[in-house]
Amino acid sequence: MTSTTPTSASASKTTEDPRLDVAAVGEQLMGRWADARRVSRELATNPQLHKVEGMPVPEHRERTFQNMFELVKTGAVHRAFPSRLGGSDDNGGNIAAFEELVTADPSLQIKAGVQWGLFGSAVLHLGTKEHQDTLLPGIMDLSVPGAFAMTETGHGSDVASIGTTATYDPSTQEFVINTPFRAAWKDYLGNAALHATAATVFAQLITNGVNHGVHCFYVPIRDENRAFLPGIGGEDDGVKGGLNGIDNGRLHFDHVRIPRTSLLNRYGNVDEDGTYTSSIESPGRRFFTMLGTLVQGRVSLDGAAVAASKVALQIAVTYANQRRQFNAASDIEEEVIMDYQRHQRRLIPRIARTYAGAFSHEELLVAFDGVFSGEKDTEEGRQDLETLAAALKPTTTWDAMSTLQEAREACGGAGYLAENRFTGLHSDLDVYTTFEGDNNILLQLVGKRLLTDFSAQFKGAKPADLARYALRTGAEQILARTGLRALGQDAADTGSEKRTANYLKDPEVQRALLTERVEVAIGEIGRALASVAKASPAEQAAAFNSHQEELIQAAHMHARLLQWEAFTRGLESVKDADSLKVLTWVRDLFALTTIEDELDWFLMNGRLSVQRARTLKEYVNRLITRLRPHAQDLVDAFGYTQAHLRAPISSGAEQIRQDEAAEYYRHLRADPESPVDERVLVKRRRAEAKAARR
Amino acid sequence: MTSTTPTSASASKTTEDPRLDVAAVGEQLMGRWADARRVSRELATNPQLHKVEGMPVPEHRERTFQNMFELVKTGAVHRAFPSRLGGSDDNGGNIAAFEELVTADPSLQIKAGVQWGLFGSAVLHLGTKEHQDTLLPGIMDLSVPGAFAMTETGHGSDVASIGTTATYDPSTQEFVINTPFRAAWKDYLGNAALHATAATVFAQLITNGVNHGVHCFYVPIRDENRAFLPGIGGEDDGVKGGLNGIDNGRLHFDHVRIPRTSLLNRYGNVDEDGTYTSSIESPGRRFFTMLGTLVQGRVSLDGAAVAASKVALQIAVTYANQRRQFNAASDIEEEVIMDYQRHQRRLIPRIARTYAGAFSHEELLVAFDGVFSGEKDTEEGRQDLETLAAALKPTTTWDAMSTLQEAREACGGAGYLAENRFTGLHSDLDVYTTFEGDNNILLQLVGKRLLTDFSAQFKGAKPADLARYALRTGAEQILARTGLRALGQDAADTGSEKRTANYLKDPEVQRALLTERVEVAIGEIGRALASVAKASPAEQAAAFNSHQEELIQAAHMHARLLQWEAFTRGLESVKDADSLKVLTWVRDLFALTTIEDELDWFLMNGRLSVQRARTLKEYVNRLITRLRPHAQDLVDAFGYTQAHLRAPISSGAEQIRQDEAAEYYRHLRADPESPVDERVLVKRRRAEAKAARR
Repeated sequence: MTSTTPTSASASKTTEDPRLDVAAVGEQLMGRWADARRVSRELATNPQLHKVEGMPVPEHRERTFQNMFELVKTGAVHRAFPSRLGGSDDNGGNIAAFEELVTADPSLQIKAGVQWGLFGSAVLHLGTKEHQDTLLPGIMDLSVPGAFAMTETGHGSDVASIGTTATYDPSTQEFVINTPFRAAWKDYLGNAALHATAATVFAQLITNGVNHGVHCFYVPIRDENRAFLPGIGGEDDGVKGGLNGIDNGRLHFDHVRIPRTSLLNRYGNVDEDGTYTSSIESPGRRFFTMLGTLVQGRVSLDGAAVAASKVALQIAVTYANQRRQFNAASDIEEEVIMDYQRHQRRLIPRIARTYAGAFSHEELLVAFDGVFSGEKDTEEGRQDLETLAAALKPTTTWDAMSTLQEAREACGGAGYLAENRFTGLHSDLDVYTTFEGDNNILLQLVGKRLLTDFSAQFKGAKPADLARYALRTGAEQILARTGLRALGQDAADTGSEKRTANYLKDPEVQRALLTERVEVAIGEIGRALASVAKASPAEQAAAFNSHQEELIQAAHMHARLLQWEAFTRGLESVKDADSLKVLTWVRDLFALTTIEDELDWFLMNGRLSVQRARTLKEYVNRLITRLRPHAQDLVDAFGYTQAHLRAPISSGAEQIRQDEAAEYYRHLRADPESPVDERVLVKRRRAEAKAARR
Repeated sequence: MTSTTPTSASASKTTEDPRLDVAAVGEQLMGRWADARRVSRELATNPQLHKVEGMPVPEHRERTFQNMFELVKTGAVHRAFPSRLGGSDDNGGNIAAFEELVTADPSLQIKAGVQWGLFGSAVLHLGTKEHQDTLLPGIMDLSVPGAFAMTETGHGSDVASIGTTATYDPSTQEFVINTPFRAAWKDYLGNAALHATAATVFAQLITNGVNHGVHCFYVPIRDENRAFLPGIGGEDDGVKGGLNGIDNGRLHFDHVRIPRTSLLNRYGNVDEDGTYTSSIESPGRRFFTMLGTLVQGRVSLDGAAVAASKVALQIAVTYANQRRQFNAASDIEEEVIMDYQRHQRRLIPRIARTYAGAFSHEELLVAFDGVFSGEKDTEEGRQDLETLAAALKPTTTWDAMSTLQEAREACGGAGYLAENRFTGLHSDLDVYTTFEGDNNILLQLVGKRLLTDFSAQFKGAKPADLARYALRTGAEQILARTGLRALGQDAADTGSEKRTANYLKDPEVQRALLTERVEVAIGEIGRALASVAKASPAEQAAAFNSHQEELIQAAHMHARLLQWEAFTRGLESVKDADSLKVLTWVRDLFALTTIEDELDWFLMNGRLSVQRARTLKEYVNRLITRLRPHAQDLVDAFGYTQAHLRAPISSGAEQIRQDEAAEYYRHLRADPESPVDERVLVKRRRAEAKAARR
């Protein structure tokens, strides 16, 4: 999108304000898998599936488990499985539907994710057709509840270093699964404390004296009475900060023997005699290929986080448009709290972020479906998908936490009541920031990919090219750091705020600023690391570490750029002119608050002059004022009903209370018998005294 | 403090690193009321008082209630009450002891706060000696559990606008307490759902046809069987986001009659015939005087928030110093996670903030004790105390939320287990940001006070002075905005990073930068508001609203300045040279990360040149690296023991697990029979192939 967006038109003062087409924008937000989403939203209105705040942990666990059968019954969780087994080979639709369950109970969502998205997916993606045909039916109908036993107490982020071993014994054609020390206990596994009767266990595969790295094994762990099988033990992880409908637990294995065929051997096989073979020669690439099949966890958390942000904002904005507090401008009527600048600043940029998150998630989902449907399943496609997921999941899960917290505080004491949803969603979604890949580690992965792309530019470059590049960069740096580059901006603007505002709302300018933020930072880090390329590993590690913070921040800004691009592409599909106008302001607000958060960088790197930076801040305020009348429409377009929101403060009860109170005071003012306010008497006395003195 | 702090000495490279005197610094942090704190810390080790995560709400409520009697028995909650009634007239010690209860169970702390700090304090401070003598004994020994019925569903922040009325009936010499509409129900009251048998009820006092504004009344609400008395009703607020050991609820009154003497009449009295008298003539000042007696709630939350941050950091840093993940620099040993730059960035600046919070809280406590002991009870002293509390409480409660969340994420999945404390403390402390004064409203109060002080400068000034001021300010602004002022800095530094670093660690520079941040912003807002001083009230309100965000931010920066000053004064008492050196770095880090957070402002207002800003960022990194070896000492000085922390991840268990795993791999490496890593084989094969080709 460039010329199609009437950004310049939107700045001209219109006599009539545009109005968002809530239904049409809502439909666009539902995305390609709108039908699956709608079915899931309908399902999520079932009170039996709803989280009951304050329910004791054992009851919540049992309720969640029972509700899983409801998901099976309604066919809510089989979309991704093969048609031949009763699924519908619909990867995108499966994730879309899954995400919407967050409004019912995040515990139900994540417990379902463990069973069908992790445990089932491991069999589906790491096993062969035989594994699928024999194991998936029981997994799909929940007759075999399972755990996904990857993480250990000692290793979460660094999966390659897990300690559990699976040693092949050719004499019996069995693998021996063993936990060699306490830190190698499997830990934090959903379903492991109570319900799982089997597990997909990740372990170091050892055969013929060689460790071939981490592979996945299907291991029965409990008998029909839910007692551990011989050699297997475990512990309950106990109460968690949230998601207490899920029975997380630990598992350990004391030389547990499983048949050779229990290795999920799609990417690596052990023959009867113990010979290891794999279609992927490089052990590193093999490991990442196996892990890559599980990217859907990250994809779905990105979407669930956006859904939770939508719920929070729909509740908080609705309340803020009804709630009144303080007589700021009139003695008679208190102000609606949404009219306070601070309140707008707290909520409206978060609406913009949530739209950006929704548009970028939809693109992620399309990319995911492309790879997993096989349509676009290339090595590059997979890598891009993984990078995209690794960039977006941290960004939206952190946004959700920040939005839920701000929304809760924006509703004061009422926001702290569990019935109003914020606190429960915050507690449940908290762990989304560290599971399925710790957010910081994921962003570091993105940063490393950006560094690789950066250095790929110079692959095969001649020394002269490199020298020229260094020279150009050096000159650019001097220009930027001295502020000379930015001074040129002021000359171009000739002090005109309007000209600067026009500059800032030009999408190409926004794109350039957001892109430069990433590229300049990556270039600086890349050059710094290149300068120690021949140093010792320890020195290289130290150099990398000294740029870790910058690298993660650059990756985060890369995610914002991706979100901005998705938002901007999303605008191309908006048909209604009014809606386009409003959503373009939202996109501009997203871009400019993102830049504002990093304004020091843009100033220090000469990307914005002081004058432009000042105008940016003023323009952000203006955009927020402009969007304030559209806040309700914008959150209504998220499309959740009272059956999803279930927050008394956004039910309309506040408006009824306000109307009743206003009516009472109207009567009081009209009644000559009403008490007089002492402050009025004081004023009157003073006026009389003054008159008497004259 | 200026010359006593050897900031320049600390920069010189010493061959031997300084070491913090943990015991001495710990003792200093205990502050003036160390004894009361110690007694309370000891009490807080009693397992009976500890929060049990996952305990169902009804049980938690009952347990908390029973534990209140334990507090009575041990004399933990009577320090602030008059000696003649068995207290010890010790206001500072009372708050210090109260704060430490947060480590046991925040519900117990806040329920105690409701009973003795709010309900009891209302009688103590708003009642006469007679009220105290008759009512306090039952409150003190908990034979009369009570609620503090100020907030209503419709009015929290704006107490002056509550709807409950207390109309005097001279015919029976009674007040009639009445709730005129639903929004005037009392709400969110601790103890109100179950335990309270009486309440201090705030209502509009009406007598002889005049409304004299909000006053406080003592009202029995339940009989001995905990049934509501006639005319009184209520509701349970239900499950909350945290603090579920407290039974919050709603109350409403249907023309409930109470004796005339139930008015807590220290600041306003109604005679038998209905004549109203007050020692404070102005209704506004009277209202704020009455509310001001309740400032201790804010004071104690400031301290409790700092205590919770200390607990979080002591747990997270201890774990980060034992936990290892990823082989960053060596194939053999994984890195301790505290050695990663990002991890340091997440935790070490928060240690600095917590120290700043501790030093500023101690000064707040001293100010509070000065006023409430009567030693320094002046109008100005009270106003300063209220402004100080209104500035610090928002700052430290938000810091606590941010620290608890970051600490939880920094500990990954383990951080999400309730046993490791972060999530429970986060849930419980969440409401500290909006109760006892919403943080945003409190900061706005501070901002208004700063604006008043700003305009007071010009009171009685001659027009010529004002013109001169305007001229000076105008010139200053031009100098700042064009960047010319900052360009001068670069000339002064002559490109020397060392010179800039010396500049940045000069406490007078830090003070000047932090002060300017507040003063310039307040000056700008003040001038903008002065320009509409003669406009309509609605226009004035609109102008104020358009600066609300800036005003609140300026107030927040004012709080940071106050914290910086307290920290800097605190350094004066540090005797040990090594400790002084380390703590000076901590103070510098606090100052510079505070400035870094607002770096765009300093750049845009010409307070820092781009070059200095760059050096500031680099110097912050250097300070963090320098402080990294002291991180454990710094958190150990907080002085909490395992009985307070109670987090398995900081118990030493992680170190034992790490040692066991390291031992296992040591044996594996030494054993020639151990499996070889496939990656090693691949490398070996490649090397052999290369050799064969030669």
